[in-house]
Amino acid sequence: MVEIFNLDQIKAVLPGLDPIQSIEEGFVAYSQGKTNIPPIGELVFKDPPGDLHIKYGCIVGTEYYVIKIASGFYENYKLNLPNYEGLMLVFSQKTGQLLCILLDEAYLTNIRTAAAGAVVAKYLAPKKVKKIGILGAGVQGRLQLEYLRAVTPCQEVYVWGINPQELGVYKQDMEAKGYSVKGTLEAEEITANCNLIVTATPAKKPLLQVDQVRPGTHITAMGSDTPEKNELDPKILQKADLVVADSLSQSELRGEISKALEAGTIKMEQVHELGNVILTPELHRSSDEQITIADLTGVAIQDIQISVAVYEALRAQRK
Amino acid sequence: MVEIFNLDQIKAVLPGLDPIQSIEEGFVAYSQGKTNIPPIGELVFKDPPGDLHIKYGCIVGTEYYVIKIASGFYENYKLNLPNYEGLMLVFSQKTGQLLCILLDEAYLTNIRTAAAGAVVAKYLAPKKVKKIGILGAGVQGRLQLEYLRAVTPCQEVYVWGINPQELGVYKQDMEAKGYSVKGTLEAEEITANCNLIVTATPAKKPLLQVDQVRPGTHITAMGSDTPEKNELDPKILQKADLVVADSLSQSELRGEISKALEAGTIKMEQVHELGNVILTPELHRSSDEQITIADLTGVAIQDIQISVAVYEALRAQRK
Repeated sequence: MVEIFNLDQIKAVLPGLDPIQSIEEGFVAYSQGKTNIPPIGELVFKDPPGDLHIKYGCIVGTEYYVIKIASGFYENYKLNLPNYEGLMLVFSQKTGQLLCILLDEAYLTNIRTAAAGAVVAKYLAPKKVKKIGILGAGVQGRLQLEYLRAVTPCQEVYVWGINPQELGVYKQDMEAKGYSVKGTLEAEEITANCNLIVTATPAKKPLLQVDQVRPGTHITAMGSDTPEKNELDPKILQKADLVVADSLSQSELRGEISKALEAGTIKMEQVHELGNVILTPELHRSSDEQITIADLTGVAIQDIQISVAVYEALRAQRK
Repeated sequence: MVEIFNLDQIKAVLPGLDPIQSIEEGFVAYSQGKTNIPPIGELVFKDPPGDLHIKYGCIVGTEYYVIKIASGFYENYKLNLPNYEGLMLVFSQKTGQLLCILLDEAYLTNIRTAAAGAVVAKYLAPKKVKKIGILGAGVQGRLQLEYLRAVTPCQEVYVWGINPQELGVYKQDMEAKGYSVKGTLEAEEITANCNLIVTATPAKKPLLQVDQVRPGTHITAMGSDTPEKNELDPKILQKADLVVADSLSQSELRGEISKALEAGTIKMEQVHELGNVILTPELHRSSDEQITIADLTGVAIQDIQISVAVYEALRAQRK
């Protein structure tokens, strides 16, 4: 009999889990070819504008496979509805039986995305993080910062946003969690002051320009997950000492790397996949002068790892 | 708030619906290009053997989009579990909100498949059906027969199966519903006696040979939905006056038509899509001598139509 869990039940088990570790293991399995993950399923709607993504698959030979269904309908705010919706389904890889439905309302997507940012920072952030820079004062701009706590003690933050109101709320929220936050409307202030930067916006034009990026900087670009979105000047990837993708196959078609390939500023052979970077010490940050870039498009393995961890915790609790 | 319905609740509203009409309208919309239906999502498992299909999409501009998830795990019978599992999810095309989960355990897939058989027979069956021939004495072999009741009064049936036991049970079950049934282990007996034939088996080698097929016969092949499965000698399609596919794009890759293309016995230009056949009187059966073949691979539009109809009925009932 299928079990159905709502967001409150899911949130209740999360503090007992280690999503960063799960997601890291997932990326390793993915890059080692131990997973079966088909291309992302997609529907695009015009009126009103929206999109649907189906990310699914498994680690071959394990207990489970997972299907994540997530949508964005960008005018929902006019109806006082959330723009994002999602659920995850966990099935048995031995029988195909549906084991549980996690009605997480896209929350687990936010968590697994933030956890991926922390995994990247663990291997690529400068040894001494002076200040953390966040572009995007939304949900992901908050969660990325919180998850970085596991990999750096730095609590000095610059945040960029599109209006003073959202920056004020962000500052208030994050200072309540112990950070010291300075808001800015100028992206340049981020690159001038911070050496660990996360971009978490739905921008369709680059927010950061190549001349602004200084030696010793790491940038994780996680906002761009479609062919249209673009947060970084493609020349930044050319300037970088190391460019990392969560998924080589997806990055060829989506996000910053696809834009840089189009612009001819990098070649696919120069891009390393995150799971391989984790496994290869020579691909970790090796100096305080390197510029490193990670482009996250969001991979089904993250959804698989987080939902299996949540399902097992919920099941253990029930016993 | 999402509503979740189980199989009993779904079965309770079905008698008030007209799946044949809904499915027919769906095929027309599909062939008219009014739908947004991506390629089928697929996972294949080796140990134990199983597969998962995700069929999804919408009629553009309507209220809903639908995702159907269905699996087959072919050794489940050893564990006393059903081999097939499935559920359907209905979402709002205006907001992306999940409206309902139909935990139909693959039942609605059976219904929409049987309804498609009836739609085909409506346009292609001989005017006077002498005897109905069914190959495959399983669930679909039963449902195909029952749904044909809507398009022909014929109750004389030959059924082919792989062992006398299953044929005995089939005979008993269907005679209780008013049919007169003769079981046979020889597929030839079907072609010799019947002019409306449905193949509903998971065969991987042709069951019917070209020399057996007589003028005036219609065959609906609905068992083959993967590149491996094959119920008809590819030469039968060459001999036919009319070859119809539920989906041109799917039939190129799956089922009888893909096998005939491989064998070089037909060309894609000779194949007509069901929705266009419905709309074009010149493509309906025009004589008692024609041989017509329909190859059904199962299209998401069927899942969309049946689940929207069921959801609307369940919602109306609740009011």
